[in-house]
Amino acid sequence: MLARTCLVLALALALPAVAEEAKKAHTPTAKELLAKSTAAEWRTPDPQNLVYMDLPQGQVVIELAQDWSPEHAANIRTLIREHYFDGSQVIRVQDNFVTQWGDPDGDDKKKAKSLGSAKETLTPEFTRKLGGKAIPFTKLPDGDVYAPEVGFSEGFPVARDAKAGEAWIAHCYGTVGVARDVGAETGNGSSLYAIIGQAPRNLDRNLAVAGKVIKGMEFLAAYPRGGEPMGFYDKPEQRVTIKSVRLAADVPEAQRTPIQVLRTDSKTFAAVIEAKRNRKDDFYTRPAGKIDLCNISVPVRDPSKPVAP
Amino acid sequence: MLARTCLVLALALALPAVAEEAKKAHTPTAKELLAKSTAAEWRTPDPQNLVYMDLPQGQVVIELAQDWSPEHAANIRTLIREHYFDGSQVIRVQDNFVTQWGDPDGDDKKKAKSLGSAKETLTPEFTRKLGGKAIPFTKLPDGDVYAPEVGFSEGFPVARDAKAGEAWIAHCYGTVGVARDVGAETGNGSSLYAIIGQAPRNLDRNLAVAGKVIKGMEFLAAYPRGGEPMGFYDKPEQRVTIKSVRLAADVPEAQRTPIQVLRTDSKTFAAVIEAKRNRKDDFYTRPAGKIDLCNISVPVRDPSKPVAP
Repeated sequence: MLARTCLVLALALALPAVAEEAKKAHTPTAKELLAKSTAAEWRTPDPQNLVYMDLPQGQVVIELAQDWSPEHAANIRTLIREHYFDGSQVIRVQDNFVTQWGDPDGDDKKKAKSLGSAKETLTPEFTRKLGGKAIPFTKLPDGDVYAPEVGFSEGFPVARDAKAGEAWIAHCYGTVGVARDVGAETGNGSSLYAIIGQAPRNLDRNLAVAGKVIKGMEFLAAYPRGGEPMGFYDKPEQRVTIKSVRLAADVPEAQRTPIQVLRTDSKTFAAVIEAKRNRKDDFYTRPAGKIDLCNISVPVRDPSKPVAP
Repeated sequence: MLARTCLVLALALALPAVAEEAKKAHTPTAKELLAKSTAAEWRTPDPQNLVYMDLPQGQVVIELAQDWSPEHAANIRTLIREHYFDGSQVIRVQDNFVTQWGDPDGDDKKKAKSLGSAKETLTPEFTRKLGGKAIPFTKLPDGDVYAPEVGFSEGFPVARDAKAGEAWIAHCYGTVGVARDVGAETGNGSSLYAIIGQAPRNLDRNLAVAGKVIKGMEFLAAYPRGGEPMGFYDKPEQRVTIKSVRLAADVPEAQRTPIQVLRTDSKTFAAVIEAKRNRKDDFYTRPAGKIDLCNISVPVRDPSKPVAP
């Protein structure tokens, strides 16, 4: 009974491998919709914006938000190309908040690893000015507690304030942000964090978003929480060491991780959202009829396989 | 620099051990507010509603939602008192969704553990009828994507629909739900799940909420995600075995876990919420000015210590 229970429970988020239950469903599941998607509805991220972080447990793939924080993306590329992150560590895991990695001695000027030719400070890129520019935006229909409008822009969950003339990437599960000191310009990408719990939207517009984890969140979210305040590890040996961080563009094509992301301006993505808003089947007798920005995960697939894994 | 970065970052959620930074803050932190709270603002949960789940990694404390799902609470008490859960296992961990535990053979009628004198099926308790009853409700000011009204009721994050005349506990981080089969009456409490990611509010009103984890989420949220669809573990040895589950009422007072929960109708709780809505300090130059129901964690403390740990 439990297996079936879980099977049904899992339908809530329209996850794969529910073919049997899906037949019963009155609304199509994400899996069924994705199976009918066209090749043109999927995009292959620019290898210049694709980061491979190899952890002992597996690989994390991050897509950099080039159009939202170009200076940060450039500095992170420099740090990666000079192998700054190789041997760096997961220094902090705070439950229902963030997993943060970087140089454990970063706060000790004497012991801190050199940033090489990367910049020490950057222009804050906390929001993106609209300024008449037509930024791709697929608006969600159910509103948001924090912003006037929310939706998706080229794969990223974004919030928009037309009056203020700005947009920004929301701190949803999997969003990768740039840790910084009190000064707005002190974030340089040498220490990054990934959101591993309920979206802390109060971080929005106060920190630069570097990008988003599109593969491997299951590793970043499952590390033991640190025993010190704010999730720092008590003992150095508790820190997980990052084997290497590479830019896909610097990896021979044959060795790159095959990955495609569903276009957030595609018909199939719109259908997936609608299916999640109004899932109605034998189990879900009361569909929510609504969906929050951070409850939508953008489908990712291995192009060699027909449907997202 | 990183340490300070994290320190500041952590202020976002107004966490403890930020004394140094707090001095700089223009708004009080939760820690400062809690330090000024009065004894009367804290409640000691009824031991009949307090569940101790001992895992190899540590103890999880769950407060049962007696007023919201009394039949389920009663059945869970029966299962606990007959030691049904001792030796049961964490059978499923699905990233950004749930950690579920129970009898791994529960779906095999021949091998399934007997429910003893507990009931096999229960009246669905997915919502609580208002019917003129004055249910305690501390309303939040910023609205909600999913429900007409949201707030807190005796420690639980709840949603309310006055028109429909019902209220329900929201599926926020840490909410404990009753897994069930397709039939609404098939949930009996022998398999429970805890939310470990972005609040899947589409589960609201479709499942019975058994209660809420008030201590030990850091253990439930950090288990390796299962490799099978929906987070089931591929191999039996991957499942964590639950040492024992006891009701606080059945544990000698001297051996009980000292725990108090801040009253959600208290002035201090209101002040904590306001501080989180409009945190303004040297780091947070742009306070959100809003807060979502599931971004608020109700403070818990060891009464022998002055401030929540």
